Amino acid sequence: MAISLNQLARELDAQLVGDPNHQIDACANLDAAKSNQLSFIYNKKYVPALKETQAGVVIVSPAFASDCVGNALVVSNPYLAYAKAAALIYQVEKKPASIHPTAVLGNDCSVSNDCTIAANVVIGDRVTLQEGCSVGPGCFIDDDVVIGKNSRLVSNVTLSKGTILGENNIIHASAVIGSDGFGYAPQDNKQGWFKIPQLGRVVMGDDVEIGANTCIDCGALGDTVIGNGVKIDNLVQIAHNVQIGDHTAIAACTGIAGSTKIGAHCTLAGGVGLVGHISIADGVHITGMTMVTHSIKEAGAYSSGTPFQSNGDWLKNAVRFKQLDTLSKKINKLIKSQKES
Amino acid sequence: MAISLNQLARELDAQLVGDPNHQIDACANLDAAKSNQLSFIYNKKYVPALKETQAGVVIVSPAFASDCVGNALVVSNPYLAYAKAAALIYQVEKKPASIHPTAVLGNDCSVSNDCTIAANVVIGDRVTLQEGCSVGPGCFIDDDVVIGKNSRLVSNVTLSKGTILGENNIIHASAVIGSDGFGYAPQDNKQGWFKIPQLGRVVMGDDVEIGANTCIDCGALGDTVIGNGVKIDNLVQIAHNVQIGDHTAIAACTGIAGSTKIGAHCTLAGGVGLVGHISIADGVHITGMTMVTHSIKEAGAYSSGTPFQSNGDWLKNAVRFKQLDTLSKKINKLIKSQKES
Amino acid sequence: MAISLNQLARELDAQLVGDPNHQIDACANLDAAKSNQLSFIYNKKYVPALKETQAGVVIVSPAFASDCVGNALVVSNPYLAYAKAAALIYQVEKKPASIHPTAVLGNDCSVSNDCTIAANVVIGDRVTLQEGCSVGPGCFIDDDVVIGKNSRLVSNVTLSKGTILGENNIIHASAVIGSDGFGYAPQDNKQGWFKIPQLGRVVMGDDVEIGANTCIDCGALGDTVIGNGVKIDNLVQIAHNVQIGDHTAIAACTGIAGSTKIGAHCTLAGGVGLVGHISIADGVHITGMTMVTHSIKEAGAYSSGTPFQSNGDWLKNAVRFKQLDTLSKKINKLIKSQKES
Repeated sequence: MAISLNQLARELDAQLVGDPNHQIDACANLDAAKSNQLSFIYNKKYVPALKETQAGVVIVSPAFASDCVGNALVVSNPYLAYAKAAALIYQVEKKPASIHPTAVLGNDCSVSNDCTIAANVVIGDRVTLQEGCSVGPGCFIDDDVVIGKNSRLVSNVTLSKGTILGENNIIHASAVIGSDGFGYAPQDNKQGWFKIPQLGRVVMGDDVEIGANTCIDCGALGDTVIGNGVKIDNLVQIAHNVQIGDHTAIAACTGIAGSTKIGAHCTLAGGVGLVGHISIADGVHITGMTMVTHSIKEAGAYSSGTPFQSNGDWLKNAVRFKQLDTLSKKINKLIKSQKES
Repeated sequence: MAISLNQLARELDAQLVGDPNHQIDACANLDAAKSNQLSFIYNKKYVPALKETQAGVVIVSPAFASDCVGNALVVSNPYLAYAKAAALIYQVEKKPASIHPTAVLGNDCSVSNDCTIAANVVIGDRVTLQEGCSVGPGCFIDDDVVIGKNSRLVSNVTLSKGTILGENNIIHASAVIGSDGFGYAPQDNKQGWFKIPQLGRVVMGDDVEIGANTCIDCGALGDTVIGNGVKIDNLVQIAHNVQIGDHTAIAACTGIAGSTKIGAHCTLAGGVGLVGHISIADGVHITGMTMVTHSIKEAGAYSSGTPFQSNGDWLKNAVRFKQLDTLSKKINKLIKSQKES
Repeated sequence: MAISLNQLARELDAQLVGDPNHQIDACANLDAAKSNQLSFIYNKKYVPALKETQAGVVIVSPAFASDCVGNALVVSNPYLAYAKAAALIYQVEKKPASIHPTAVLGNDCSVSNDCTIAANVVIGDRVTLQEGCSVGPGCFIDDDVVIGKNSRLVSNVTLSKGTILGENNIIHASAVIGSDGFGYAPQDNKQGWFKIPQLGRVVMGDDVEIGANTCIDCGALGDTVIGNGVKIDNLVQIAHNVQIGDHTAIAACTGIAGSTKIGAHCTLAGGVGLVGHISIADGVHITGMTMVTHSIKEAGAYSSGTPFQSNGDWLKNAVRFKQLDTLSKKINKLIKSQKES
């Protein structure tokens, strides 16, 4: 959508330096942008590119405003302002509401008139789709699911029985919400595992986004609960009865074991693992591939793991890890004997 | 399903303390349960909740029996007894056998009369579905697959050519069984990789459960073999020619590389990694995020990784890991020089 | 397909020792192979099996030629020769070109006459399928996608808007190519995250293979780029704007964060994690579960992590990791005091 710099400045609450009538209809990086395109800068390493950009306008913080060669929109938070500008320019054209003839609906469903249901969707009984929902090709929505207003399932998503989605959710392709939790009771005499029926649901708040191929299991008893504004990346595992506080973001390949409770406004980087039945405070930030084995009571950043090295050096150091307790005792003995001497 | 305490006691081989005619038709946690609901306790931290519960009956071990305020079912293994009780109360109502008109079947298939095939299922040629199988929406079953009695595919599952499933299997949504293993031969002169045809199958035993979005690759030559009673969580990778012994349980986000053999009655916690071509004994338990780089010959618990800390402390310690061999040598030199002096 | 040893020797540029007219129509491991089957050896631990094999022919390097009891094909690279032989014998029978009546195509698509589109495929508008493509059941191909010659989507694959696939690609089941990257701008006053529109594409080269349930996100601005001959295993996460050089291979459960650039001819083992915005040189090999936190400028092998131990030993050593900086300081103090004395 084309938009004038004047209008953009108003929408973004930005100070415009330049031509108010210039029109923008796309976004691009500084080095690729043309005169019809908007760009932005948030890191000083791009100042050389800023000085040479052909962009029709650049969103900048006051610190970089003087480096702009063309039109500029000056704001305090350029990254956020860029996101808002891009959302304006690339408004997703809403497809006209329709139910594709190949979609299969169960009994007693309530589908608002302005929903879009794509080809080969399968919907169970007593499912509710509120206004403006969009269900992409190949999704399966089992019985008793409720999907809040303006939520979108991309494609091949599975929502299991009883799942509750809030408003403005986006569920990316092949995500599985509400699958059985991993619960078994061990039997005696090596008879193996007895499956524990998984009776709870997944209940999600508003403005939640779930990545492709991510899994969120239903509760065993009681529900798995995802707060408002939670953002979860691809290939994440959320086990049964996990609770995630509002506005927490979880990057790809992370796994959270059963009944763990994560606070609000946390960030978990990629590949993190949390054991079950622990509690993480609000405002905790966990760095990539960290193994979290007990509760965290204070906000802050936490980490584990070892730094990478050349394989040759690593082999030498890694073997010493296995001797670490012995080494420590040797040191303490040395210190003691030194003090005594 | 409603069931009397009398009948429950008989089914669970439990000692009933209380009203034999009281009826139960649901399960709930101690703090939420009402008089029509069954609950259970397996950990002493819930004794306060036990003393205040409104549950119609509580399954307890003899140790907690005296803390019960209402009806109790006393058993030696309350967790297992709860699982059995819940399975009784929440018997999955079997849908009437049917093949949805949108399902596409290939040639020469053998589908038992009492199978259920949902909408948009695609089945190849020469596929066998034994009695009581259920295939959920959007599943794809390729040529020459055999599915044992009473097995269930949830939705959007892929079973590749020649996959053999045992009886009473449950395959959760979007799991992929029998995809090509990751096998390539390097070519000379930087020409890159030459794909090695993956010619084997996946062969699974009875009572196997496979989590959502989990992948089990077919063998390269020979088969990938999953034993009886094996339980695999979501987002697990099982590479070509892996063998998994009976009743082993594998938690989410774990990856097992090619040709590795895992014994019976093992447990692998979440995020574990095993290299290829190793062998793990029966009764091995591997803790979360452990990296297993060689065979394990004895039963027991095994671990790797470092404990998490505040990011500031971790940075200081992590850099020292890179000096660990040097540190060790310094210590040994000190000890030597001390002995000499 | 049956093939004579004479013809095989010619195709593989191998030296035949034995009967040129013997026919082979299958492959098997040395211990299982029969007279109609080809086998191979690449590791001396299989020499005993080689001496007892019933295989119709064995592919060997000159070093093992004298251990062969039957027919032999002698080559310098037996593993590669086996791959080529298996590809000849197990030529995938191409299904006759067809568009299944249940497939749903959008407007203005260009589908070459010799493509196969399976049941329940959904294709958007302006999609191009070049000669010889095969799209398996339940795949969803969104608007403006281009798929190069002879590429194959297995089943339930999602290709998002604008994705470009090269020639001879194989995309395994439930892989998701082109999903939104994980990009949000933090808002002030704990209002949470503002979604940044993900405007780029995924652009893949020729001869790429992508594993089951793997995710490759589209670029935020600009594209995510996968080079020629890249092989990616199952359950891998490739974030927005990642670039992967030609002939790099990435094993399962690995995650690569946004804007990271990986060179050509690299190998990443399973469970590896790379942070965003770093650069990895050509010819880098990263061992399993390594955490890569900064750029790598030189070819070579790199590692991180700690070796596994019995849980009891590990607990003792792991706690010492948290004291590593203190321990190091103690040692240095001891050395200093020794020098002074």
